[in-house]
Amino acid sequence: MAKETSVVYLYPSKSQVWGENFDHKKLVITTLAANGKKEESNGAPNDTYPAFPGWYADVSWPGEAHTYKIEKILFHGKSEFQELLVFESSRQGKVAILDGHIQLTENDEFAYQEMLTHLALCSIPDPKKVLLIGGGDGGILREISRHSSVEHIDICELDQMVIDVYSEFFPDIAVGYEDPRVHVHISDGVAFINSVPEGTYDVIISDAFPAMGHSADVLADECFLESVAKALRPGGVFSAPADSLWHKNFVVADTIANCKKIFKGSVNYAWTTVPTYASGVIGFMLCSTEGPPVNFKHPINKLNPEKNGVAKGPTKFYNPEIHAAAFCLPSFVDKVD
Amino acid sequence: MAKETSVVYLYPSKSQVWGENFDHKKLVITTLAANGKKEESNGAPNDTYPAFPGWYADVSWPGEAHTYKIEKILFHGKSEFQELLVFESSRQGKVAILDGHIQLTENDEFAYQEMLTHLALCSIPDPKKVLLIGGGDGGILREISRHSSVEHIDICELDQMVIDVYSEFFPDIAVGYEDPRVHVHISDGVAFINSVPEGTYDVIISDAFPAMGHSADVLADECFLESVAKALRPGGVFSAPADSLWHKNFVVADTIANCKKIFKGSVNYAWTTVPTYASGVIGFMLCSTEGPPVNFKHPINKLNPEKNGVAKGPTKFYNPEIHAAAFCLPSFVDKVD
Repeated sequence: MAKETSVVYLYPSKSQVWGENFDHKKLVITTLAANGKKEESNGAPNDTYPAFPGWYADVSWPGEAHTYKIEKILFHGKSEFQELLVFESSRQGKVAILDGHIQLTENDEFAYQEMLTHLALCSIPDPKKVLLIGGGDGGILREISRHSSVEHIDICELDQMVIDVYSEFFPDIAVGYEDPRVHVHISDGVAFINSVPEGTYDVIISDAFPAMGHSADVLADECFLESVAKALRPGGVFSAPADSLWHKNFVVADTIANCKKIFKGSVNYAWTTVPTYASGVIGFMLCSTEGPPVNFKHPINKLNPEKNGVAKGPTKFYNPEIHAAAFCLPSFVDKVD
Repeated sequence: MAKETSVVYLYPSKSQVWGENFDHKKLVITTLAANGKKEESNGAPNDTYPAFPGWYADVSWPGEAHTYKIEKILFHGKSEFQELLVFESSRQGKVAILDGHIQLTENDEFAYQEMLTHLALCSIPDPKKVLLIGGGDGGILREISRHSSVEHIDICELDQMVIDVYSEFFPDIAVGYEDPRVHVHISDGVAFINSVPEGTYDVIISDAFPAMGHSADVLADECFLESVAKALRPGGVFSAPADSLWHKNFVVADTIANCKKIFKGSVNYAWTTVPTYASGVIGFMLCSTEGPPVNFKHPINKLNPEKNGVAKGPTKFYNPEIHAAAFCLPSFVDKVD
């Protein structure tokens, strides 16, 4: 990146903030000269969002941001669906920004990918057929690959750009595609899931990312959840990211209640630490359909550290102890389970 | 705060960053005009630290910062020991900055205070005499106050300014001083601890805050740890904050090994989520002296939710499940215990 100009993300208005009906399409990139003068303004008030030349600001809500110096922009492009920025940061390795929000950093992606995957797959015996909705980066595929019982993995990703860019810039994440059990479908997840026979999958993982506001939608979308439940076998499990327990507008009990309308087996909320996500925490919803009972809090399907599929070594974050611990919640969280 | 000027914290040089021999005394405050022009420069390069008028930047390391809009400065002063800034933030309530680093925010202080206190006090039966070193804000006192077995609480705080400012601006934290069992000593913690008879305390808590670089010192200071161990009864326990497991220069195994040289009972590392601390995580070291065995991972001394001492209600964060979960570590942490 030339020293003269740099890129920051700004938001057009106070109402356009994630968690408060944020519209990702309204994001704009503003280029600033090194002297701080905006070369292209979007009118964002300086006193609501910090804008500093050469730094990316992940705005959690008005008046707070996590900022990263952009050492080098590696990719910046738009598909018909979204906008993707990849830059080299000072401390967190490469960082991927999707529609203005952090999707992942090289430094801590494994915590999210491992937990979202293994909280589900380690809770049932011998999962064989798995569907991943979203997750085009390949990290969840890499984690599913560790399970030798799995025979077939479908991934339904809307955006070919995501797959291509991760393949080029994040080979340790995109390595998941190298598993021969993986079948890639470039299409809409809802249409795909409605096209498969009932009871097809042992596990369905949704990797529509909460920091982008999608997960709240996913977990509140009863129609989608119905489709997921139908596509699962009796006693099959569904895993999806959920909001951080620290987010003020997020009510764990409401989300659990909503999922329980659809999933007649177990429904539990878990959480773990991912430093680059807002509040440093990400949540997970784990749901099972009626059938053989599933106890998410006590994993019964242990990973074999010597069988890692296409992953280059054993898990860095996940283990049976941290699995069980992820379901222990602070007292202020209104648990209903 | 007038709109024309605002306050940000900057750092004089790359080497002056916490975790890399940061010297807190070299912090300076720079006032900037609303147009972004520095009115008082300290020479910090713009490309290393973000400086935005009216925002406070908590710099974790070069190239990364958590930034908060300062809605209103409530207090800004220096004692002979340190510099304290209290401001109203947009989302996290009041924020206290000690020597340039976040000490606490109203929104999440309870997670740290409750865990540091109860991980220790709930691990032994009927603690009676407790010493708190530092912790002048009063939050740890508030938590100790919940334990009805406790007969005597000594607090040794160096800086009267801290006590006074918290009393004025954080009454729900400073409420800890209202417990009649509390005895305040305004003096140096090391001198104080060396002055008490051997075996005086059941529990000693150090609340010298790691984001200020002190905890690393405390846990590496064998002389201080020796004094703590001597002041504890056989089977007495010591609790202190430790670095986040995500910090690259922090080696859990080394810290445990260092503590084991002194404490001949149990030595364990725990962690929890505190969004406003760097990486969103804080660590804890729990140590016991030779004597009746202590199993920190399984609390035996449950809190009575109907007896809260001077606290205004039951704990918001701590419970026996989260106590046990705090000792479960991700696989990348090189545990030796």
